Amino acid sequence: MVIEYDGTHYVGWQIQPNGVSIQSLMEKALHTITGETIRVSSSGRTDSGVHALAQVVHFDTASSIPGDKFAFALNTRLPGDIRILFSQEVSPDFHSRFDVRSKSYRYIIRVSPHNGAFTATHALHVHSRLNIDAMNEAAALFLGEHDFVAFKSSGVTLKNTVRHIYASEFTRMGDYIIYDVCGSGFMYNMVRIMVGSMLDVGKGYSSVSSISDALIGKERSLAGATAPPHGLYLSRVRYDDFDTDVITQNRAFIPTKSR
Amino acid sequence: MVIEYDGTHYVGWQIQPNGVSIQSLMEKALHTITGETIRVSSSGRTDSGVHALAQVVHFDTASSIPGDKFAFALNTRLPGDIRILFSQEVSPDFHSRFDVRSKSYRYIIRVSPHNGAFTATHALHVHSRLNIDAMNEAAALFLGEHDFVAFKSSGVTLKNTVRHIYASEFTRMGDYIIYDVCGSGFMYNMVRIMVGSMLDVGKGYSSVSSISDALIGKERSLAGATAPPHGLYLSRVRYDDFDTDVITQNRAFIPTKSR
Repeated sequence: MVIEYDGTHYVGWQIQPNGVSIQSLMEKALHTITGETIRVSSSGRTDSGVHALAQVVHFDTASSIPGDKFAFALNTRLPGDIRILFSQEVSPDFHSRFDVRSKSYRYIIRVSPHNGAFTATHALHVHSRLNIDAMNEAAALFLGEHDFVAFKSSGVTLKNTVRHIYASEFTRMGDYIIYDVCGSGFMYNMVRIMVGSMLDVGKGYSSVSSISDALIGKERSLAGATAPPHGLYLSRVRYDDFDTDVITQNRAFIPTKSR
Repeated sequence: MVIEYDGTHYVGWQIQPNGVSIQSLMEKALHTITGETIRVSSSGRTDSGVHALAQVVHFDTASSIPGDKFAFALNTRLPGDIRILFSQEVSPDFHSRFDVRSKSYRYIIRVSPHNGAFTATHALHVHSRLNIDAMNEAAALFLGEHDFVAFKSSGVTLKNTVRHIYASEFTRMGDYIIYDVCGSGFMYNMVRIMVGSMLDVGKGYSSVSSISDALIGKERSLAGATAPPHGLYLSRVRYDDFDTDVITQNRAFIPTKSR
Protein backbone atom coordinates (compact mmCIF):
# COMPACT_ATOMS: atom_id res chain seq x y z
CA MET A 1 0.00 0.00 0.00
CA VAL A 2 1.07 3.60 -0.57
CA ILE A 3 0.17 5.81 2.37
CA GLU A 4 0.13 9.55 2.96
CA TYR A 5 0.12 10.88 6.50
CA ASP A 6 0.32 14.12 8.41
CA GLY A 7 2.70 13.26 11.26
CA THR A 8 1.71 16.22 13.44
CA HIS A 9 -0.42 14.35 15.94
CA TYR A 10 1.52 11.07 16.10
CA VAL A 11 4.57 9.71 17.91
CA GLY A 12 5.85 8.58 14.50
CA TRP A 13 5.37 5.55 12.30
CA GLN A 14 6.42 2.90 14.79
CA ILE A 15 4.43 1.61 17.76
CA GLN A 16 5.58 3.34 20.97
CA PRO A 17 4.49 2.79 24.56
CA ASN A 18 3.64 6.47 25.05
CA GLY A 19 1.36 7.83 22.36
CA VAL A 20 -0.46 6.95 19.17
CA SER A 21 1.59 5.75 16.22
CA ILE A 22 0.51 5.45 12.60
CA GLN A 23 1.45 1.76 12.63
CA SER A 24 -0.80 1.05 15.64
CA LEU A 25 -3.82 2.70 13.98
CA MET A 26 -3.19 0.75 10.77
CA GLU A 27 -2.95 -2.55 12.62
CA LYS A 28 -6.11 -1.80 14.60
CA ALA A 29 -8.02 -0.96 11.43
CA LEU A 30 -6.74 -4.14 9.75
CA HIS A 31 -7.87 -6.17 12.74
CA THR A 32 -11.36 -4.68 12.47
CA ILE A 33 -11.55 -5.48 8.78
CA THR A 34 -10.02 -8.96 8.70
CA GLY A 35 -10.37 -10.26 12.25
CA GLU A 36 -6.68 -11.15 12.02
CA THR A 37 -3.79 -9.88 14.15
CA ILE A 38 -1.67 -8.32 11.44
CA ARG A 39 1.81 -6.84 11.73
CA VAL A 40 2.43 -4.07 9.20
CA SER A 41 5.91 -3.48 7.79
CA SER A 42 6.91 -0.11 6.29
CA SER A 43 9.76 1.07 4.04
CA GLY A 44 11.25 2.58 7.19
CA ARG A 45 10.26 4.50 10.30
CA THR A 46 9.45 8.16 10.38
CA ASP A 47 9.87 10.18 13.57
CA SER A 48 7.27 12.04 15.58
CA GLY A 49 6.15 15.07 13.58
CA VAL A 50 7.62 13.80 10.29
CA HIS A 51 5.16 13.49 7.41
CA ALA A 52 4.83 11.05 4.53
CA LEU A 53 3.65 11.74 1.01
CA ALA A 54 4.48 8.21 -0.04
CA GLN A 55 5.17 5.64 2.65
CA VAL A 56 5.06 2.03 1.46
CA VAL A 57 3.81 -0.78 3.69
CA HIS A 58 3.09 -4.46 3.24
CA PHE A 59 1.43 -7.13 5.37
CA ASP A 60 0.42 -10.77 5.17
CA THR A 61 -3.20 -11.76 5.37
CA ALA A 62 -5.44 -14.76 4.68
CA SER A 63 -8.35 -12.39 4.00
CA SER A 64 -10.37 -12.82 0.81
CA ILE A 65 -10.75 -9.04 0.40
CA PRO A 66 -9.24 -8.14 -3.01
CA GLY A 67 -5.95 -6.24 -2.71
CA ASP A 68 -7.22 -3.06 -4.35
CA LYS A 69 -10.18 -2.86 -1.95
CA PHE A 70 -8.07 -2.56 1.21
CA ALA A 71 -7.46 1.15 0.55
CA PHE A 72 -11.19 1.88 0.57
CA ALA A 73 -11.91 -0.37 3.56
CA LEU A 74 -9.07 1.06 5.65
CA ASN A 75 -9.80 4.71 4.81
CA THR A 76 -13.27 4.42 6.34
CA ARG A 77 -11.63 3.26 9.60
CA LEU A 78 -8.61 5.57 9.79
CA PRO A 79 -8.48 9.22 10.87
CA GLY A 80 -8.45 11.77 8.03
CA ASP A 81 -4.76 12.61 8.51
CA ILE A 82 -3.76 9.07 7.47
CA ARG A 83 -4.87 8.08 3.97
CA ILE A 84 -4.23 4.95 1.95
CA LEU A 85 -3.70 6.21 -1.59
CA PHE A 86 -3.33 2.82 -3.23
CA SER A 87 -3.36 -0.87 -2.38
CA GLN A 88 -2.69 -4.03 -4.37
CA GLU A 89 -1.81 -7.66 -3.81
CA VAL A 90 1.89 -8.35 -4.27
CA SER A 91 4.12 -11.38 -4.55
CA PRO A 92 4.61 -13.09 -1.13
CA ASP A 93 8.35 -12.42 -1.29
CA PHE A 94 7.96 -8.62 -1.66
CA HIS A 95 9.27 -6.75 1.37
CA SER A 96 8.54 -3.03 1.84
CA ARG A 97 11.85 -2.40 3.60
CA PHE A 98 14.40 -4.95 2.37
CA ASP A 99 13.53 -4.45 -1.32
CA VAL A 100 13.87 -0.64 -1.33
CA ARG A 101 16.13 0.62 -4.14
CA SER A 102 15.99 4.31 -3.23
CA LYS A 103 14.12 6.69 -0.97
CA SER A 104 13.47 10.41 -1.34
CA TYR A 105 12.78 13.00 1.29
CA ARG A 106 11.60 16.57 0.93
CA TYR A 107 12.33 19.25 3.51
CA ILE A 108 10.21 22.42 3.31
CA ILE A 109 11.57 25.72 4.61
CA ARG A 110 9.48 28.87 4.65
CA VAL A 111 11.44 32.11 4.56
CA SER A 112 9.24 35.05 5.48
CA PRO A 113 8.76 37.65 8.21
CA HIS A 114 5.83 35.64 9.61
CA ASN A 115 4.92 31.98 9.43
CA GLY A 116 1.72 30.94 7.64
CA ALA A 117 -1.46 29.68 9.28
CA PHE A 118 -1.26 26.41 7.32
CA THR A 119 2.44 25.71 7.84
CA ALA A 120 2.98 25.83 11.63
CA THR A 121 3.56 22.05 11.70
CA HIS A 122 4.26 21.55 7.99
CA ALA A 123 7.34 23.66 7.22
CA LEU A 124 10.33 25.04 9.09
CA HIS A 125 9.88 28.78 9.45
CA VAL A 126 13.01 30.89 9.03
CA HIS A 127 12.98 34.69 9.41
CA SER A 128 16.38 35.42 7.96
CA ARG A 129 17.35 35.32 4.30
CA LEU A 130 19.09 32.13 3.23
CA ASN A 131 21.86 32.00 0.65
CA ILE A 132 20.35 29.33 -1.58
CA ASP A 133 23.38 29.30 -3.91
CA ALA A 134 25.70 28.42 -1.03
CA MET A 135 23.16 25.83 0.17
CA ASN A 136 23.13 24.22 -3.27
CA GLU A 137 26.93 24.13 -3.35
CA ALA A 138 26.75 22.37 0.02
CA ALA A 139 23.96 20.04 -1.15
CA ALA A 140 26.05 18.93 -4.14
CA LEU A 141 28.84 17.77 -1.81
CA PHE A 142 26.57 14.99 -0.53
CA LEU A 143 26.21 13.47 -4.02
CA GLY A 144 27.80 10.07 -4.55
CA GLU A 145 28.95 7.53 -2.00
CA HIS A 146 30.09 8.77 1.41
CA ASP A 147 30.45 7.61 4.96
CA PHE A 148 27.66 9.55 6.69
CA VAL A 149 28.76 8.70 10.22
CA ALA A 150 28.96 12.42 11.12
CA PHE A 151 25.34 12.80 9.97
CA LYS A 152 23.78 10.11 12.12
CA SER A 153 22.27 10.49 15.56
CA SER A 154 25.10 9.87 18.05
CA GLY A 155 22.98 7.45 20.09
CA VAL A 156 22.67 4.97 17.22
CA THR A 157 25.25 2.25 16.56
CA LEU A 158 25.37 0.89 13.02
CA LYS A 159 27.94 -1.29 11.24
CA ASN A 160 27.49 0.26 7.83
CA THR A 161 27.26 4.06 7.71
CA VAL A 162 28.06 4.40 3.99
CA ARG A 163 25.19 5.64 1.85
CA HIS A 164 24.84 6.65 -1.79
CA ILE A 165 23.11 9.96 -2.57
CA TYR A 166 21.63 10.21 -6.07
CA ALA A 167 20.04 13.69 -5.90
CA SER A 168 20.42 16.58 -3.48
CA GLU A 169 19.08 20.00 -4.40
CA PHE A 170 17.32 23.11 -3.11
CA THR A 171 14.65 24.81 -5.21
CA ARG A 172 12.99 28.15 -4.51
CA MET A 173 9.18 28.34 -4.84
CA GLY A 174 7.82 31.70 -3.80
CA ASP A 175 8.52 32.12 -0.09
CA TYR A 176 9.55 28.47 0.19
CA ILE A 177 12.89 26.76 -0.20
CA ILE A 178 12.46 23.07 -0.88
CA TYR A 179 15.19 20.50 -0.38
CA ASP A 180 14.83 17.23 -2.29
CA VAL A 181 17.20 14.39 -1.57
CA CYS A 182 17.24 10.87 -2.97
CA GLY A 183 19.52 8.12 -1.72
CA SER A 184 20.10 4.40 -1.33
CA GLY A 185 19.01 4.73 2.28
CA PHE A 186 19.08 7.10 5.22
CA MET A 187 20.03 6.55 8.84
CA TYR A 188 18.06 7.83 11.81
CA ASN A 189 17.97 11.67 11.73
CA MET A 190 20.36 11.74 8.76
CA VAL A 191 18.28 14.03 6.52
CA ARG A 192 17.54 16.35 9.43
CA ILE A 193 21.25 16.66 10.32
CA MET A 194 22.11 17.25 6.64
CA VAL A 195 19.46 20.00 6.48
CA GLY A 196 20.60 21.49 9.80
CA SER A 197 24.17 21.64 8.50
CA MET A 198 23.12 23.26 5.22
CA LEU A 199 20.95 25.80 7.08
CA ASP A 200 24.12 26.90 8.88
CA VAL A 201 25.70 27.41 5.46
CA GLY A 202 22.65 29.29 4.18
CA LYS A 203 22.70 31.62 7.18
CA GLY A 204 26.45 32.22 6.80
CA TYR A 205 27.26 30.57 10.14
CA SER A 206 29.51 28.03 8.45
CA SER A 207 31.22 27.66 5.09
CA VAL A 208 30.31 25.34 2.24
CA SER A 209 33.45 23.34 2.98
CA SER A 210 32.16 22.52 6.48
CA ILE A 211 30.10 19.80 4.77
CA SER A 212 33.19 18.13 3.28
CA ASP A 213 34.95 18.57 6.62
CA ALA A 214 32.18 16.62 8.36
CA LEU A 215 32.08 13.91 5.67
CA ILE A 216 35.86 13.46 5.89
CA GLY A 217 36.23 14.07 9.64
CA LYS A 218 33.43 11.61 10.49
CA GLU A 219 32.59 13.32 13.79
CA ARG A 220 28.99 14.22 14.69
CA SER A 221 30.29 17.49 16.20
CA LEU A 222 31.54 18.61 12.76
CA ALA A 223 27.97 18.61 11.39
CA GLY A 224 25.16 21.04 12.25
CA ALA A 225 22.18 20.71 14.55
CA THR A 226 19.31 18.33 13.78
CA ALA A 227 16.64 20.31 11.91
CA PRO A 228 13.10 20.06 13.37
CA PRO A 229 10.94 17.12 12.23
CA HIS A 230 7.91 19.07 11.03
CA GLY A 231 9.52 20.29 7.77
CA LEU A 232 10.35 16.74 6.69
CA TYR A 233 8.35 14.54 4.30
CA LEU A 234 9.11 11.02 3.09
CA SER A 235 8.28 11.77 -0.54
CA ARG A 236 9.11 8.76 -2.70
CA VAL A 237 10.12 5.10 -2.43
CA ARG A 238 11.39 3.10 -5.39
CA TYR A 239 11.61 -0.67 -5.89
CA ASP A 240 12.79 -2.67 -8.87
CA ASP A 241 9.30 -2.74 -10.34
CA PHE A 242 7.39 -0.09 -8.43
CA ASP A 243 7.78 3.67 -7.98
CA THR A 244 5.41 5.53 -5.62
CA ASP A 245 5.51 8.53 -7.97
CA VAL A 246 3.14 6.62 -10.26
CA ILE A 247 0.56 7.00 -7.49
CA THR A 248 1.40 10.32 -5.87
CA GLN A 249 2.45 12.49 -8.80
CA ASN A 250 -0.58 14.75 -8.71
CA ARG A 251 -1.86 14.12 -5.25
CA ALA A 252 0.18 15.59 -2.46
CA PHE A 253 -0.19 19.22 -3.27
CA ILE A 254 -2.42 21.80 -1.68
CA PRO A 255 -3.01 24.56 -4.21
CA THR A 256 -4.12 27.32 -1.87
CA LYS A 257 -2.30 29.86 -4.02
CA SER A 258 -0.82 29.34 -7.44
CA ARG A 259 0.04 32.73 -8.81
CA MET B 1 -3.74 44.01 9.07
CA VAL B 2 -3.73 41.12 6.60
CA ILE B 3 -4.46 37.80 8.30
CA GLU B 4 -4.26 34.18 7.24
CA TYR B 5 -6.17 31.55 9.17
CA ASP B 6 -7.02 27.89 9.09
CA GLY B 7 -10.71 27.86 10.00
CA THR B 8 -10.82 24.16 10.91
CA HIS B 9 -10.88 24.56 14.68
CA TYR B 10 -12.97 27.74 14.95
CA VAL B 11 -16.65 28.67 14.92
CA GLY B 12 -15.81 31.24 12.25
CA TRP B 13 -14.55 34.79 12.22
CA GLN B 14 -17.24 36.34 14.39
CA ILE B 15 -17.62 36.05 18.16
CA GLN B 16 -20.20 33.35 19.03
CA PRO B 17 -21.55 32.26 22.41
CA ASN B 18 -20.66 28.59 21.78
CA GLY B 19 -17.06 28.16 20.71
CA VAL B 20 -13.84 29.95 19.93
CA SER B 21 -13.86 32.51 17.11
CA ILE B 22 -10.89 34.08 15.37
CA GLN B 23 -12.18 37.53 16.30
CA SER B 24 -12.28 36.67 20.01
CA LEU B 25 -8.68 35.41 20.01
CA MET B 26 -7.55 38.55 18.17
CA GLU B 27 -9.31 40.83 20.64
CA LYS B 28 -7.89 38.92 23.62
CA ALA B 29 -4.36 39.16 22.20
CA LEU B 30 -4.81 42.88 21.53
CA HIS B 31 -6.00 43.38 25.10
CA THR B 32 -2.87 41.63 26.41
CA ILE B 33 -0.62 43.82 24.27
CA THR B 34 -2.29 47.21 24.69
CA GLY B 35 -4.31 46.91 27.90
CA GLU B 36 -7.21 48.33 25.90
CA THR B 37 -10.58 46.75 25.14
CA ILE B 38 -10.41 46.70 21.37
CA ARG B 39 -13.11 45.75 18.91
CA VAL B 40 -11.72 44.34 15.66
CA SER B 41 -13.56 44.85 12.37
CA SER B 42 -12.97 42.55 9.37
CA SER B 43 -13.71 42.78 5.65
CA GLY B 44 -16.58 40.36 6.36
CA ARG B 45 -17.35 37.23 8.34
CA THR B 46 -16.25 33.77 7.41
CA ASP B 47 -18.20 30.72 8.58
CA SER B 48 -17.08 27.88 10.77
CA GLY B 49 -14.57 25.78 8.84
CA VAL B 50 -13.96 28.44 6.17
CA HIS B 51 -10.33 29.54 5.77
CA ALA B 52 -8.71 32.86 4.94
CA LEU B 53 -5.58 33.47 2.91
CA ALA B 54 -6.10 37.21 3.10
CA GLN B 55 -8.61 38.55 5.59
CA VAL B 56 -8.31 42.30 6.27
CA VAL B 57 -9.06 43.76 9.70
CA HIS B 58 -8.76 47.17 11.28
CA PHE B 59 -9.08 48.48 14.81
CA ASP B 60 -8.69 51.73 16.74
CA THR B 61 -6.07 52.04 19.44
CA ALA B 62 -4.34 54.72 21.49
CA SER B 63 -1.29 52.44 21.81
CA SER B 64 2.14 53.83 20.97
CA ILE B 65 3.22 50.52 19.39
CA PRO B 66 4.20 51.27 15.77
CA GLY B 67 1.68 49.89 13.26
CA ASP B 68 4.12 47.49 11.60
CA LYS B 69 5.05 45.95 14.97
CA PHE B 70 1.54 44.70 15.77
CA ALA B 71 1.99 41.69 13.45
CA PHE B 72 5.02 40.50 15.41
CA ALA B 73 3.50 41.22 18.82
CA LEU B 74 0.19 39.50 18.00
CA ASN B 75 1.79 36.42 16.39
CA THR B 76 3.58 35.58 19.64
CA ARG B 77 0.18 35.55 21.39
CA LEU B 78 -1.99 33.82 18.80
CA PRO B 79 -2.22 30.10 18.01
CA GLY B 80 -0.20 28.94 14.99
CA ASP B 81 -3.28 28.51 12.80
CA ILE B 82 -3.95 32.27 12.90
CA ARG B 83 -1.11 34.40 11.51
CA ILE B 84 -0.87 38.13 10.99
CA LEU B 85 1.02 38.47 7.69
CA PHE B 86 1.22 42.26 7.69
CA SER B 87 0.21 45.26 9.78
CA GLN B 88 0.41 49.01 9.24
CA GLU B 89 -1.14 52.19 10.59
CA VAL B 90 -3.88 53.51 8.33
CA SER B 91 -5.91 56.68 8.02
CA PRO B 92 -8.57 56.93 10.79
CA ASP B 93 -11.33 56.92 8.17
CA PHE B 94 -10.27 53.58 6.63
CA HIS B 95 -12.85 50.84 7.20
CA SER B 96 -12.02 47.21 6.49
CA ARG B 97 -15.60 46.38 5.47
CA PHE B 98 -17.24 49.53 4.11
CA ASP B 99 -14.28 50.43 1.87
CA VAL B 100 -14.01 47.04 0.13
CA ARG B 101 -13.94 47.34 -3.68
CA SER B 102 -13.85 43.62 -4.42
CA LYS B 103 -13.38 40.30 -2.70
CA SER B 104 -12.12 37.02 -4.06
CA TYR B 105 -12.78 33.50 -2.86
CA ARG B 106 -11.13 30.24 -3.83
CA TYR B 107 -12.86 26.88 -3.54
CA ILE B 108 -10.63 23.80 -3.68
CA ILE B 109 -12.00 20.47 -4.91
CA ARG B 110 -9.93 17.32 -4.90
CA VAL B 111 -10.97 14.72 -7.44
CA SER B 112 -9.37 11.36 -6.68
CA PRO B 113 -10.25 7.84 -5.52
CA HIS B 114 -9.05 8.71 -2.00
CA ASN B 115 -8.75 11.97 -0.12
CA GLY B 116 -5.30 13.18 0.96
CA ALA B 117 -3.94 13.21 4.51
CA PHE B 118 -3.39 16.98 4.35
CA THR B 119 -6.72 17.93 2.79
CA ALA B 120 -9.38 16.36 5.05
CA THR B 121 -10.42 19.84 6.26
CA HIS B 122 -8.84 21.88 3.45
CA ALA B 123 -10.50 20.71 0.25
CA LEU B 124 -13.78 19.13 -0.79
CA HIS B 125 -13.12 15.54 -1.76
CA VAL B 126 -15.06 14.23 -4.76
CA HIS B 127 -14.71 10.64 -6.00
CA SER B 128 -16.44 11.04 -9.33
CA ARG B 129 -15.04 12.72 -12.41
CA LEU B 130 -16.23 16.27 -12.91
CA ASN B 131 -16.91 17.81 -16.31
CA ILE B 132 -14.75 20.92 -15.91
CA ASP B 133 -15.76 22.30 -19.32
CA ALA B 134 -19.44 22.27 -18.32
CA MET B 135 -18.51 23.77 -14.95
CA ASN B 136 -16.66 26.60 -16.68
CA GLU B 137 -19.63 27.26 -18.95
CA ALA B 138 -21.75 27.47 -15.80
CA ALA B 139 -19.17 29.66 -14.02
CA ALA B 140 -19.19 32.15 -16.91
CA LEU B 141 -22.95 32.66 -16.50
CA PHE B 142 -22.32 34.34 -13.14
CA LEU B 143 -20.16 37.07 -14.74
CA GLY B 144 -21.58 40.58 -14.69
CA GLU B 145 -24.39 42.02 -12.59
CA HIS B 146 -27.13 39.68 -11.39
CA ASP B 147 -29.70 39.35 -8.66
CA PHE B 148 -28.25 36.52 -6.57
CA VAL B 149 -31.35 36.05 -4.44
CA ALA B 150 -31.51 32.34 -5.42
CA PHE B 151 -27.91 31.96 -4.20
CA LYS B 152 -28.34 33.30 -0.71
CA SER B 153 -29.15 31.37 2.44
CA SER B 154 -32.95 31.33 2.72
CA GLY B 155 -32.82 32.40 6.37
CA VAL B 156 -31.22 35.77 5.56
CA THR B 157 -33.25 38.85 4.64
CA LEU B 158 -31.42 41.52 2.65
CA LYS B 159 -32.71 44.56 0.75
CA ASN B 160 -30.10 44.46 -1.97
CA THR B 161 -29.32 41.03 -3.44
CA VAL B 162 -27.69 42.34 -6.64
CA ARG B 163 -23.96 41.66 -6.91
CA HIS B 164 -21.38 42.16 -9.64
CA ILE B 165 -19.09 39.24 -10.48
CA TYR B 166 -15.80 40.20 -12.15
CA ALA B 167 -14.15 36.78 -12.46
CA SER B 168 -15.48 33.23 -12.16
CA GLU B 169 -13.38 30.32 -13.37
CA PHE B 170 -12.32 26.74 -12.66
CA THR B 171 -8.71 25.66 -13.22
CA ARG B 172 -7.35 22.14 -13.08
CA MET B 173 -4.12 21.58 -11.12
CA GLY B 174 -3.18 17.91 -10.94
CA ASP B 175 -5.89 16.15 -8.94
CA TYR B 176 -7.40 19.47 -7.90
CA ILE B 177 -10.03 21.66 -9.46
CA ILE B 178 -9.80 25.22 -8.19
CA TYR B 179 -12.63 27.72 -8.45
CA ASP B 180 -11.67 31.39 -8.25
CA VAL B 181 -14.37 34.01 -8.03
CA CYS B 182 -14.07 37.78 -7.63
CA GLY B 183 -17.00 40.07 -7.00
CA SER B 184 -18.22 43.36 -5.59
CA GLY B 185 -19.46 41.46 -2.57
CA PHE B 186 -20.92 38.14 -1.50
CA MET B 187 -23.90 37.32 0.67
CA TYR B 188 -23.96 34.69 3.41
CA ASN B 189 -23.31 31.23 1.85
CA MET B 190 -23.41 32.71 -1.67
CA VAL B 191 -20.10 31.24 -2.89
CA ARG B 192 -20.91 27.87 -1.36
CA ILE B 193 -24.34 27.75 -3.07
CA MET B 194 -22.75 28.81 -6.39
CA VAL B 195 -20.17 26.02 -6.02
CA GLY B 196 -22.83 23.49 -4.98
CA SER B 197 -24.86 24.38 -8.08
CA MET B 198 -21.84 24.08 -10.38
CA LEU B 199 -20.88 20.74 -8.80
CA ASP B 200 -24.31 19.45 -9.89
CA VAL B 201 -23.46 20.59 -13.40
CA GLY B 202 -20.00 18.96 -13.23
CA LYS B 203 -21.51 15.67 -12.10
CA GLY B 204 -24.17 15.79 -14.84
CA TYR B 205 -27.03 16.06 -12.33
CA SER B 206 -28.16 19.36 -13.84
CA SER B 207 -27.56 21.26 -17.04
CA VAL B 208 -25.47 24.40 -17.55
CA SER B 209 -28.69 26.35 -18.13
CA SER B 210 -29.85 25.50 -14.59
CA ILE B 211 -27.59 28.36 -13.47
CA SER B 212 -29.39 30.91 -15.67
CA ASP B 213 -32.71 29.41 -14.57
CA ALA B 214 -31.81 30.09 -10.93
CA LEU B 215 -30.52 33.61 -11.65
CA ILE B 216 -33.71 34.44 -13.57
CA GLY B 217 -36.15 32.45 -11.45
CA LYS B 218 -34.81 33.95 -8.18
CA GLU B 219 -35.84 30.98 -6.07
CA ARG B 220 -33.42 29.29 -3.68
CA SER B 221 -34.88 25.92 -4.70
CA LEU B 222 -33.65 26.43 -8.28
CA ALA B 223 -30.00 26.48 -7.11
CA GLY B 224 -27.96 23.56 -5.80
CA ALA B 225 -27.02 22.53 -2.30
CA THR B 226 -24.64 24.59 -0.17
CA ALA B 227 -21.13 23.16 -0.69
CA PRO B 228 -19.25 22.31 2.55
CA PRO B 229 -17.27 25.13 4.22
CA HIS B 230 -13.87 23.42 4.40
CA GLY B 231 -13.05 23.85 0.70
CA LEU B 232 -13.55 27.62 0.87
CA TYR B 233 -10.85 30.28 1.27
CA LEU B 234 -11.23 34.05 1.39
CA SER B 235 -8.31 34.71 -0.95
CA ARG B 236 -8.10 38.43 -1.75
CA VAL B 237 -9.58 41.76 -0.68
CA ARG B 238 -9.11 44.94 -2.71
CA TYR B 239 -9.51 48.57 -1.68
CA ASP B 240 -8.95 51.76 -3.66
CA ASP B 241 -5.33 51.90 -2.59
CA PHE B 242 -4.58 48.47 -1.16
CA ASP B 243 -4.62 44.95 -2.58
CA THR B 244 -3.90 41.99 -0.28
CA ASP B 245 -2.15 40.23 -3.17
CA VAL B 246 0.81 42.55 -2.58
CA ILE B 247 1.27 40.73 0.74
CA THR B 248 0.11 37.20 0.01
CA GLN B 249 1.32 36.55 -3.52
CA ASN B 250 4.00 34.04 -2.55
CA ARG B 251 2.86 33.02 0.88
CA ALA B 252 -0.21 30.86 1.01
CA PHE B 253 1.09 27.86 -0.79
CA ILE B 254 2.27 24.58 0.61
CA PRO B 255 4.63 23.02 -1.91
CA THR B 256 4.50 19.41 -0.75
CA LYS B 257 4.67 18.26 -4.35
CA SER B 258 5.42 20.33 -7.39
CA ARG B 259 5.97 17.97 -10.27
